[in-house]
Amino acid sequence: MDNQSDDFMPCPEDRFTFGLWTVGNRGRDPFGHETRPPIDPVESVRRLAELGAYGVAFHDDDLIPPGSSTAEREQILKRFRAALDDTGMRVPMATTNLFSHPVFKDGAFTANDPTVRRYALAKTIDAIDLGAELGAQTYVLWGGREGVECDAAKDVPAALDCYAEAVNAICEYIRDRGYELEVAIEPKPNEPRGDLFLPTVGHALAFINELDHPEMVGLNPEFAHETMSGLSFHHAVAQTLWHDKLFHIDLNAQRIGRYDQDFRFGSEGIRDAFYLVKLLEEAEWDGVRHFDAHAYRTESAEGVWEFARGCMRTYLVLREKAQRFAADSDIQEALAVAKVDGLTERTLVDGPTPESFAALRAEKFDLDALAAYGYGHERLDQLVTELLMGIR
Amino acid sequence: MDNQSDDFMPCPEDRFTFGLWTVGNRGRDPFGHETRPPIDPVESVRRLAELGAYGVAFHDDDLIPPGSSTAEREQILKRFRAALDDTGMRVPMATTNLFSHPVFKDGAFTANDPTVRRYALAKTIDAIDLGAELGAQTYVLWGGREGVECDAAKDVPAALDCYAEAVNAICEYIRDRGYELEVAIEPKPNEPRGDLFLPTVGHALAFINELDHPEMVGLNPEFAHETMSGLSFHHAVAQTLWHDKLFHIDLNAQRIGRYDQDFRFGSEGIRDAFYLVKLLEEAEWDGVRHFDAHAYRTESAEGVWEFARGCMRTYLVLREKAQRFAADSDIQEALAVAKVDGLTERTLVDGPTPESFAALRAEKFDLDALAAYGYGHERLDQLVTELLMGIR
Amino acid sequence: MDNQSDDFMPCPEDRFTFGLWTVGNRGRDPFGHETRPPIDPVESVRRLAELGAYGVAFHDDDLIPPGSSTAEREQILKRFRAALDDTGMRVPMATTNLFSHPVFKDGAFTANDPTVRRYALAKTIDAIDLGAELGAQTYVLWGGREGVECDAAKDVPAALDCYAEAVNAICEYIRDRGYELEVAIEPKPNEPRGDLFLPTVGHALAFINELDHPEMVGLNPEFAHETMSGLSFHHAVAQTLWHDKLFHIDLNAQRIGRYDQDFRFGSEGIRDAFYLVKLLEEAEWDGVRHFDAHAYRTESAEGVWEFARGCMRTYLVLREKAQRFAADSDIQEALAVAKVDGLTERTLVDGPTPESFAALRAEKFDLDALAAYGYGHERLDQLVTELLMGIR
Amino acid sequence: MDNQSDDFMPCPEDRFTFGLWTVGNRGRDPFGHETRPPIDPVESVRRLAELGAYGVAFHDDDLIPPGSSTAEREQILKRFRAALDDTGMRVPMATTNLFSHPVFKDGAFTANDPTVRRYALAKTIDAIDLGAELGAQTYVLWGGREGVECDAAKDVPAALDCYAEAVNAICEYIRDRGYELEVAIEPKPNEPRGDLFLPTVGHALAFINELDHPEMVGLNPEFAHETMSGLSFHHAVAQTLWHDKLFHIDLNAQRIGRYDQDFRFGSEGIRDAFYLVKLLEEAEWDGVRHFDAHAYRTESAEGVWEFARGCMRTYLVLREKAQRFAADSDIQEALAVAKVDGLTERTLVDGPTPESFAALRAEKFDLDALAAYGYGHERLDQLVTELLMGIR
Repeated sequence: MDNQSDDFMPCPEDRFTFGLWTVGNRGRDPFGHETRPPIDPVESVRRLAELGAYGVAFHDDDLIPPGSSTAEREQILKRFRAALDDTGMRVPMATTNLFSHPVFKDGAFTANDPTVRRYALAKTIDAIDLGAELGAQTYVLWGGREGVECDAAKDVPAALDCYAEAVNAICEYIRDRGYELEVAIEPKPNEPRGDLFLPTVGHALAFINELDHPEMVGLNPEFAHETMSGLSFHHAVAQTLWHDKLFHIDLNAQRIGRYDQDFRFGSEGIRDAFYLVKLLEEAEWDGVRHFDAHAYRTESAEGVWEFARGCMRTYLVLREKAQRFAADSDIQEALAVAKVDGLTERTLVDGPTPESFAALRAEKFDLDALAAYGYGHERLDQLVTELLMGIR
Repeated sequence: MDNQSDDFMPCPEDRFTFGLWTVGNRGRDPFGHETRPPIDPVESVRRLAELGAYGVAFHDDDLIPPGSSTAEREQILKRFRAALDDTGMRVPMATTNLFSHPVFKDGAFTANDPTVRRYALAKTIDAIDLGAELGAQTYVLWGGREGVECDAAKDVPAALDCYAEAVNAICEYIRDRGYELEVAIEPKPNEPRGDLFLPTVGHALAFINELDHPEMVGLNPEFAHETMSGLSFHHAVAQTLWHDKLFHIDLNAQRIGRYDQDFRFGSEGIRDAFYLVKLLEEAEWDGVRHFDAHAYRTESAEGVWEFARGCMRTYLVLREKAQRFAADSDIQEALAVAKVDGLTERTLVDGPTPESFAALRAEKFDLDALAAYGYGHERLDQLVTELLMGIR
Repeated sequence: MDNQSDDFMPCPEDRFTFGLWTVGNRGRDPFGHETRPPIDPVESVRRLAELGAYGVAFHDDDLIPPGSSTAEREQILKRFRAALDDTGMRVPMATTNLFSHPVFKDGAFTANDPTVRRYALAKTIDAIDLGAELGAQTYVLWGGREGVECDAAKDVPAALDCYAEAVNAICEYIRDRGYELEVAIEPKPNEPRGDLFLPTVGHALAFINELDHPEMVGLNPEFAHETMSGLSFHHAVAQTLWHDKLFHIDLNAQRIGRYDQDFRFGSEGIRDAFYLVKLLEEAEWDGVRHFDAHAYRTESAEGVWEFARGCMRTYLVLREKAQRFAADSDIQEALAVAKVDGLTERTLVDGPTPESFAALRAEKFDLDALAAYGYGHERLDQLVTELLMGIR
Repeated sequence: MDNQSDDFMPCPEDRFTFGLWTVGNRGRDPFGHETRPPIDPVESVRRLAELGAYGVAFHDDDLIPPGSSTAEREQILKRFRAALDDTGMRVPMATTNLFSHPVFKDGAFTANDPTVRRYALAKTIDAIDLGAELGAQTYVLWGGREGVECDAAKDVPAALDCYAEAVNAICEYIRDRGYELEVAIEPKPNEPRGDLFLPTVGHALAFINELDHPEMVGLNPEFAHETMSGLSFHHAVAQTLWHDKLFHIDLNAQRIGRYDQDFRFGSEGIRDAFYLVKLLEEAEWDGVRHFDAHAYRTESAEGVWEFARGCMRTYLVLREKAQRFAADSDIQEALAVAKVDGLTERTLVDGPTPESFAALRAEKFDLDALAAYGYGHERLDQLVTELLMGIR
């Protein structure tokens, strides 16, 4: 198969990473059984390295099957580390599975039963040790069971207290151990719970401000999760950057108002994906580009690697389009017509002083002229559309 | 018409308020002309007072038609104030219309043109004076045009800078004047713009933390706006309370994933409305219960007052159901089965100390027993359903 | 537990049925393992009978595990039939699992591979025999895998041809065997496929008209499935009745724009559930009231029976409210104000004749008076809200 | 402005049409006043002709202001016809405004008041005469007010009876007059009513089968309307073609789960737009490509023509991509891997005979092999993504 031009070949410098659970996804869904055999994490590392990836991420259980003995754990780690060493692959992020075991059915950090909450914390600190051992710099926290269907069964403010207590404890543990780990919260609106706590990027950003060590905690926004609610992912990430809280990112694709699809990056919402890539690149954001997606259930094992390759290629194509956007004189002219630079001017040049307010009151506004101005968004948007379609 | 039992008659102590624009809504929509004649604001005050309301809110233009002379403004205010005095009605909240005039078509506080931003600010400080003059304690800020359709035309972080500059200026103005006004931001995900900035309660809560006077700024969450995105309004308000930022509230009804409907409170989503009322009442929240809704377009002027009465009655019915919930022994027993009180216990009783982490590691968890426990949410939820349907 | 008043005790005359897969649901979801042990179908029959149900439905695999020998099949059937006989429970509906096995990953009746389509048909005719053997009158056809994520991989008109060929073959088989079975198609918009064919009640009704034996085929609308798309389920069922195609119904609850939730009937959308029950009862529809829902994952085995009881009780409560609606003089007066009876008058009393058109042209319409009329929907809707909340 | 390459210049042979109301849209929305001056329909005809359009469509009121005298009507028509003659522009479609006037607030053809229904019919037959006079071949029927918010106020089956009576009357009138007009129903799920009748393409297709002259009635599917519900527009149009009922089409863009946006074609959902264009072109569908969209509110008059140009250019770009799809050997190879041609084979080559069923029963299926096959959708979908992005 030779469908790749050389221009869009991923390489480690592009810093693409994949979760072990993404290429390892076996195609099970709520109505169907697995369609693919399990993949050995060591195989995943090798195949992804061949494709040009930079590293992998994992949940504790992805790497070390629950119930493994200490000896088994060491054996697994040794083999895994050897694969990393052989390939030069990195582990920039680790996380904990706090959602699969039935013990978490009422929540993990917000479970009503304090014993369950303690177990969740115990499992988490083990996973943090594992991540730190493998060199992770980011610990992701997705509260997949932190929510409720029967609202009477959860006191939401009390649940948020418990949630904050858990994140505070995690930060304390990291500090106590002297790890170089940052914590990144991953919001999601619903599924697998009826409603999840911290449902959007905004709710999680606000939550962080109430923590003991807000400087240690940021976000891991996911394309699919914001999109499920119909919110703009590009705007969500832009606000996260504005708060200086973009610690990690999960790239995939999703249609609005549906089950969590985790499709290949760019396979839906090309325009949204473009603005996102443009934002990350123009901000010179230095985090890894992590894909949290999986192959369609129709695929055999081979399709999984096509899936992985496609995620990376689409990112690279869009990155090149972002460069073209900056270099396109028609687009730049249209941006000037839209007065985009006007947003960087201060509104009150002398700040909000009494004199400024008096001046505001005295200012004569020609409302008719201001209202009549044409911002040229139709032309600008069409230029972007044509850029995306490759005809400019 | 005698369809009201005496138990649910609103009175000023219930602190119900309505926007002048709500009962004054004339039934225009994107596809149709007005179906009702205009209502004199003085008439609205009188009719709402008769129905048992506590007060009214307004946008500057609702009360003082744009272009009024100073003399006209004084004349209108005099009449309006007389109606307030006659009826004992209050004006707890005021706001500015920054969305109707074409000058705002590219935004108000985030317009690309700084002149438009200055005009928006000038209009706002006039509206603040007007609100303060009539005794308002809350100034609401809904950024109806702060957003975009053509993403290339907005630099989102720069737009957030402008947004913050405007809110900072508003706070400075209020402080400078010595007004007793708090500022409440009202989030909305989209409509009339393709995507709005600060799309949810969460995004706005996070934004406040970046302001110069965060203590002066809180939220005005709206039922319809959170519900449009499919997010739980009850959870949104609970998190707002958790941050101590519930400064005002807009009550109405809405179906998920549709145009902004602003239906009569409780006419959709009875269950969500119940949990909201329960939350506000149990928190003993002392703000006004403000309805931002309007009568169906099928109604004549008389239907408007049926609409207003219905909003208040449904609130009172649900308030009584919240009291029954607390008094119902089956429900209380079911809450115990669900271990709701467990959420108020600390997870780590000695805090996140090294000793606590060591103890966590040593703790033996009986996962099978924890996983097997039945939380009884089906029974609990059914009890609430039956409470809502009035059969317990 | 004594939370049931005697008024709402289900009995077989109410004709409530449950899928074996509903009470047998073990709480697995896309992110979590099973939380409940398997239930023996015979146990389900006994427990449901005790609760007052009328019967059960099943997929072939629910009753006869795939791979069972003929002897095992007979043994299972004998025990199952004995349970039916003991309890008086019936099997009004049967269906085929064409979605769990990986062989169906690209579709069953619309799989691109004709061999898969043939296997789907072979499995279906076996399931039809099984259903007929147990007395089913309705065979339900849910095309859970009939759809696609990658649109290039399906020629939609060709897929609809295959779909029609399969349904025609099923009808032919039923006729050939002389079974008294009707076929009911169950539409769904998406999940587990990105987009499903025949996504709504409307699409399926249209499809039926192209079949060889349209009189044998009708619908099995499901509350959750229409609601996922934000469509009114009450309207969907009303249109199905209008076409005389309501052959079966799946009752449950769902929030708009989310994963398929299959919650307890009435646990979300009380108003929608009420209008549905009112519609079915007023139409004197004689089908069974089938629940296709399952207990929350938080429940132990005992919670499953609370779930089942709750579904039935809510239906009975709403049925009684529909009777009250008809008997409430205020509501009836409000219906008159809304001119509801006007819909049953013919618009052109003499039909669409040239004379009628001439008369139409000559008719003088007092548009101002017609436009000024108030239909009183606010009052009417509030009366219904209060009926639902049990205060009238 | 020279942003157009010569390859994608529209010409009349491309058969692009626009509603007068689309380019004439003045930017009013539920929260804001008009931002653009009115456009003379004659000017619209001239400008669209210059841009390469084929024709225009209109509602009666777009061309003849309500309340015009007969003389005024004739004068308007004379000028308009002259513009058509001068430019060679055509009027392939006409429709009636049955939604703006308050008289229609409770519906038009399904208004509870028979007098309103008669007025709607009288207005419609006048509009049909007007359309026929100008050479229209398609009469579109969008029931913008045919729906309800307060469900108690509508008997849905009775409303469908009235709806059918109206469409039957329209067909009778057309036959009686000997017009060469086909009727095309335009479905929409909601807005401006809470729920609309005939909410999707499917519901309308089913409805047609109950009419007196089903052969005269087909559909006018609209991209935005199906997309509002999250349904695939490409699938909707494919099923409409399958029923041979695609009589007209409305092209625009929309995000799922939002207010009716009517954006420029291709500005959202490039992938969906591509599959739609591919479908129409490969089916060699001979209808006009009609745009029912409007310029953003940020635009001055000049932006309107950029908007119109953009709609057509994007269609032409996607049409060329559909040709490339057919010519791309990698894509064709991937289609073979996906077994797309297998859908055109019959499942039962000898039809649904007893012998076929016996053969089915005897057939040995190698389920493991069938389940293991990889359909290669990831590669295929990525190839399409790269085609869309212009890198192949």
